[in-house]
Amino acid sequence: MPTETAPAYTYPDRDEIRIEPVLHALADPVRLQIVRQLADGGECACGNLDVRVSKSTLTHHLRTLREAGVIMGRQQGTARYNSLRREDLDALFPGLLNGILNAPR
Amino acid sequence: MPTETAPAYTYPDRDEIRIEPVLHALADPVRLQIVRQLADGGECACGNLDVRVSKSTLTHHLRTLREAGVIMGRQQGTARYNSLRREDLDALFPGLLNGILNAPR
Repeated sequence: MPTETAPAYTYPDRDEIRIEPVLHALADPVRLQIVRQLADGGECACGNLDVRVSKSTLTHHLRTLREAGVIMGRQQGTARYNSLRREDLDALFPGLLNGILNAPR
Repeated sequence: MPTETAPAYTYPDRDEIRIEPVLHALADPVRLQIVRQLADGGECACGNLDVRVSKSTLTHHLRTLREAGVIMGRQQGTARYNSLRREDLDALFPGLLNGILNAPR
């Protein structure tokens, strides 16, 4: 009988983070909304993110953000928590994140 | 006999520029290369941009940058000149452009 296991999260190390995938990840309105919530509220369980998309779409967006190096995720019990890699992003691209988070909406 | 006229350029006004299209425009390596050249060298004729893409691909990239509000273009005789909208971008998204231009390559 097949067993289902949660896929392992993969992240780029800080020195592997590249500007183009970061910008691509942040260029989507839903992903930008996720990032704003993580910036405002700190680490957040997937289920508590306030975005109007299906669970599978949310999973896809979170993966895009993780793989670009924008967020980290960790599993605790049945919950998955996400947090913004602010320290890494600010170190690599000073000014970028604040410029985006303070953008007129 | 059909005559060919250059299409009129359209630009968003400063207050119409939105962060998502700007990030999308900047997320492409070739477009980022164009923006870096305009940032370093000021206004530049299309033909003088150092990018290894076909003329039609370059035209497409320049349109994407123009429509997002990242660059301006002007026609002078047979040449088209492009320039970075640094003042507009810095006013709307302080820190963004420098964060991107100074990114590790």
